[in-house]
Amino acid sequence: MTLKELSRAELSDFLSEQKTLLDDFKKKGLKLDMSRGKPSPEQLDLSNEMLTHCLDGDHISENGVDCRNYGVLDGIYEAKRLFMKMIGVGRWEIIIGGNSSLQMMYDALAKAMLLGVKGSPKPWCKCDKVKWLCPAPGYDRHFAICEAFGIEMITVPMLADGPDMDMVEKLVSEDEAIKGIWCVPRFANPTGVVYSDRVITRLANLKPKAVDFRIFWDDAYCVHSLTDNVPNILNILDECKHAGNPDMVLIFASTSKISFPGGGVAIVGASEENINFMKEQMSYQTIGYDKLNQLRHAKFFKTYEGILEHMKKHRDIIKPKFDAVLEALDRELAPIGAGSWSRPEGGYFISFDGEPGTAKRIVALCKEAGVTLTGAGATFPYGVDPEDKNIRIAPTYPSLSELKSAIEIFCVAVKVATAERLLEG
Amino acid sequence: MTLKELSRAELSDFLSEQKTLLDDFKKKGLKLDMSRGKPSPEQLDLSNEMLTHCLDGDHISENGVDCRNYGVLDGIYEAKRLFMKMIGVGRWEIIIGGNSSLQMMYDALAKAMLLGVKGSPKPWCKCDKVKWLCPAPGYDRHFAICEAFGIEMITVPMLADGPDMDMVEKLVSEDEAIKGIWCVPRFANPTGVVYSDRVITRLANLKPKAVDFRIFWDDAYCVHSLTDNVPNILNILDECKHAGNPDMVLIFASTSKISFPGGGVAIVGASEENINFMKEQMSYQTIGYDKLNQLRHAKFFKTYEGILEHMKKHRDIIKPKFDAVLEALDRELAPIGAGSWSRPEGGYFISFDGEPGTAKRIVALCKEAGVTLTGAGATFPYGVDPEDKNIRIAPTYPSLSELKSAIEIFCVAVKVATAERLLEG
Repeated sequence: MTLKELSRAELSDFLSEQKTLLDDFKKKGLKLDMSRGKPSPEQLDLSNEMLTHCLDGDHISENGVDCRNYGVLDGIYEAKRLFMKMIGVGRWEIIIGGNSSLQMMYDALAKAMLLGVKGSPKPWCKCDKVKWLCPAPGYDRHFAICEAFGIEMITVPMLADGPDMDMVEKLVSEDEAIKGIWCVPRFANPTGVVYSDRVITRLANLKPKAVDFRIFWDDAYCVHSLTDNVPNILNILDECKHAGNPDMVLIFASTSKISFPGGGVAIVGASEENINFMKEQMSYQTIGYDKLNQLRHAKFFKTYEGILEHMKKHRDIIKPKFDAVLEALDRELAPIGAGSWSRPEGGYFISFDGEPGTAKRIVALCKEAGVTLTGAGATFPYGVDPEDKNIRIAPTYPSLSELKSAIEIFCVAVKVATAERLLEG
Repeated sequence: MTLKELSRAELSDFLSEQKTLLDDFKKKGLKLDMSRGKPSPEQLDLSNEMLTHCLDGDHISENGVDCRNYGVLDGIYEAKRLFMKMIGVGRWEIIIGGNSSLQMMYDALAKAMLLGVKGSPKPWCKCDKVKWLCPAPGYDRHFAICEAFGIEMITVPMLADGPDMDMVEKLVSEDEAIKGIWCVPRFANPTGVVYSDRVITRLANLKPKAVDFRIFWDDAYCVHSLTDNVPNILNILDECKHAGNPDMVLIFASTSKISFPGGGVAIVGASEENINFMKEQMSYQTIGYDKLNQLRHAKFFKTYEGILEHMKKHRDIIKPKFDAVLEALDRELAPIGAGSWSRPEGGYFISFDGEPGTAKRIVALCKEAGVTLTGAGATFPYGVDPEDKNIRIAPTYPSLSELKSAIEIFCVAVKVATAERLLEG
């Protein structure tokens, strides 16, 4: 029987019972964290060889570059070759950066504001207003960059196969101030959505009123599959070229969740003309990124297929964690009709939707009981979830036993908050 | 007898003779490069241990941070401790960044333009005009950043002990649009000048009309001495604090010329309030820089004194190169009164001043004979040396024998250009 079917008295009894359970948890003084999409130490151990004998005395790239010294702004070739296939671009369509794709996205947007992108009539900071489309629920750090730069965010609903394209098409064709859109095309943060061919084709064929509109294509989870296969989505750069919009997309990725979050490499891909434009802008900023780390990655993974093999080892570690969360939600919440959740086939998150008006309360209850969750609202622009219902669950970092405790507490918190809400209504 | 004392006929003979010498060099088809301040491979070998057994399986910082994972925006403590003494700041006055101090300077200026610095009434890009003081001869990449952002550069003459402070004081007190000044306080690029106590005190006591004026203190060569001692200059942050201007200075440094230019770490130092402000701004840009590389550096150098010991090994390699250049200039050019040059006690450059109107010609003649020099004018804002006389000589990268050939050709080119100039005038 679902909670909605209970009488007020039954619901009150249920609530007291669950509150008692929660109080018991509080007494245990637990400290559990399901807040950030961090790999666990066990996952990081998979790449430890990179820190030991991977570079043994070797620092010269295939084509003779001394990776210790200055130079090679766009990265060494063997690192490019490694990642070209991963993000679906060619040899002249890629730059290998530092350790953070977030930083490359921030920098790309900062430069767009200060200097403009290729084809900009003027730097964006000289425009009266800059707006950005934000499919939501989405990635909080994307939204934070917009907020930092005073870019007005427009929420676009995330549907089962990507952003609501009817809305996207309408908005970009009407409003010149809309300069871009955030997209996480594979295993989107937090919904796990994989963009359909139809959505990707429509994105590539957009006819924005802003001539310098850009799709920020954050392919953060491009090889982060929980199944045997990486989703074979349409190649956005190819589609943009076919549509006559070759410069409309900037593709970002990193090895943060492949090798090391603290010491990986970031990648940007785009049309050759875009890349050349970006290199010219970058040439004022740095003489080059850390080529030794690029060489480490090239030597460790060797090929794109090597990356895919490596990701299976990650999967073997994290799949049981996703399963444990889903198993608990299915067992504890599905029968009583409290909330709904994604069943992602990859990525780092499970997206939970509670009864409207319960997300903040659930997060607060969890906190009291020693479980840290991503702040409610974080998955929406300005941190405001209009229905106060979405919560991002990040299962990868805790150990399996910690995770099982945490999700148990989460389920009790959902029961409490849902019962409270129903009693109020 | 100096060239100026020769008769026209004698000068013509001299010119023909030198041109013949230069033609002989051209025939040799040499390819020599004295253009960039790059360490030689031999210098980089000094830190090779960092690439082999330095991190052997170790990735946990002293206070328990897993350097492989996300986090610690401002860097791990052992890296901070290593560099605090080097740049003269305290524990809460430092951020350890990525591999490029140039990038940290670019970013600091980009953020000032887009968002403002601590205390800015508004982002600088919202000001009608932003101007910057550029002591010259100076570092071309500093000037290039200003140029990229459309910041108007005002040239300030470099004197024997730092920038012309009479001019600096007057300008900043009168013009609100002047937001900052570039300074390389030790072994300035290219002059080798070390700022005197008097200059540093006057800088710290500036009373700029712009309330958010900043000294960009690029201490790039802080430990890069050619003698036994690092110059003991006044601590700019202390002086700024004493003067009641604690937030006026941002200190930059890196290990690019200590460990590896392609894989070092960069550092920024400032007042605690400034650092906190910068960290807040940075928190939108990245989750953290490469902590594994920070750990590598901390483990390899261990202490500031360890860095100083290491720098003596660099000195042993590069001092003979500086000596070879100076010996050639002294032997070939001093007796005939052709030009003047610095005798730096550290840094990476020798600054050569030819007869006015000869620098471009000398660089062109050298190029024809197979010797690449930094472009004439590069040491001035907008690449324009008003007197066309300054040339930056970078002796560190070539081998000693290559360098000796290159400087021999340089001296002949100077003789040709000087004789031509005197015959014209």
